[in-house]
Amino acid sequence: MSGFTRGEEIDRLIHLLAKLPGLGPRSARRAALALLKKRETLLEPLAAALAAAAAALKQCATCGNLDTTDPCALCRDPERDGLTICVVEDVDDLWALERAGIFRGRYHVLGGALSALDGITPDRLNLGKLVERVRAGVGEVILAMNATVEGQTTAHYLMDALEPLRVRVTRLAHGVPVGGELDYLDEGTLSAAFKARRPV
Amino acid sequence: MSGFTRGEEIDRLIHLLAKLPGLGPRSARRAALALLKKRETLLEPLAAALAAAAAALKQCATCGNLDTTDPCALCRDPERDGLTICVVEDVDDLWALERAGIFRGRYHVLGGALSALDGITPDRLNLGKLVERVRAGVGEVILAMNATVEGQTTAHYLMDALEPLRVRVTRLAHGVPVGGELDYLDEGTLSAAFKARRPV
Repeated sequence: MSGFTRGEEIDRLIHLLAKLPGLGPRSARRAALALLKKRETLLEPLAAALAAAAAALKQCATCGNLDTTDPCALCRDPERDGLTICVVEDVDDLWALERAGIFRGRYHVLGGALSALDGITPDRLNLGKLVERVRAGVGEVILAMNATVEGQTTAHYLMDALEPLRVRVTRLAHGVPVGGELDYLDEGTLSAAFKARRPV
Repeated sequence: MSGFTRGEEIDRLIHLLAKLPGLGPRSARRAALALLKKRETLLEPLAAALAAAAAALKQCATCGNLDTTDPCALCRDPERDGLTICVVEDVDDLWALERAGIFRGRYHVLGGALSALDGITPDRLNLGKLVERVRAGVGEVILAMNATVEGQTTAHYLMDALEPLRVRVTRLAHGVPVGGELDYLDEGTLSAAFKARRPV
């Protein structure tokens, strides 16, 4: 950089922004500049929002969700069906299902998926608490893992682990995504959709 | 969102992150989740870095650069040639030229480009100070505007404004980008490269 300096604080800001998913070095510089140019309307509010989120953040001891209360808003909600638990890998999956607004039961966030490559073994996941919740009385466990190798490995592991508890275990259907074109789908999805075809 | 809440502080964080260039609603959620999951290593350091940058940030009264000192590090550097001024639209252009490490003079940051559409008139740009600096004694002014309609309009405006000051005014060459394939270039660039062809 030929001795070029733009102030340690600015460099550090760019360095940290580049660690966010979706931002590389170039977009981190652009984001930093946007922040610096909008000190009152963006930089200072974002600094305050981060500090507030850091102070308020709690992990729900029941389901593993991230929220500002423990138990989280979903576990506290008396309107939700406590007899159905939807197991997801991570909080973003929970957010996605909530955006779809199709599930009114409770969640259980594993905090990842089994992966030999990344060294994620069963003891690294939030599994003990799930077994405990199912034992306390649950009618159905919905496995909503990602349709990846790791997700499906985790789903199989959970099926085995839940089997002795004699609870109904279901998983999400595979098939053609709504709005999806067959031409763009992989063979695995097409094959799954074909096998699971239904009478009209 | 069917009454779904994930805590006001988390929602506000996502809302503000989505305002950064390069982040949409979806990537803002991903970024927020990465921050929440890495409280000690990412969330708290970024909050501190933003607060530090906001506290330290200064705009250089000489050249308009953003830095943590005024005059900025580039204007203070005694090694740099004070007789050559490179005029850029914005701080990110200055950063790009500094990364290339090809210029050892001073800069002048306009803070934008003339645009009738966006209502950017000459009085909105950092122009008076440039004329003042040139009057105080400068050998060459390099116009390094973007090769856009706005950038070139601004360059022409500056040529007219600097003309009575009898200073040498130059602009960046147009041509084939290094590593660029002719097949992918627009007609304007090809035409400029052709007209400016040089003997080998």
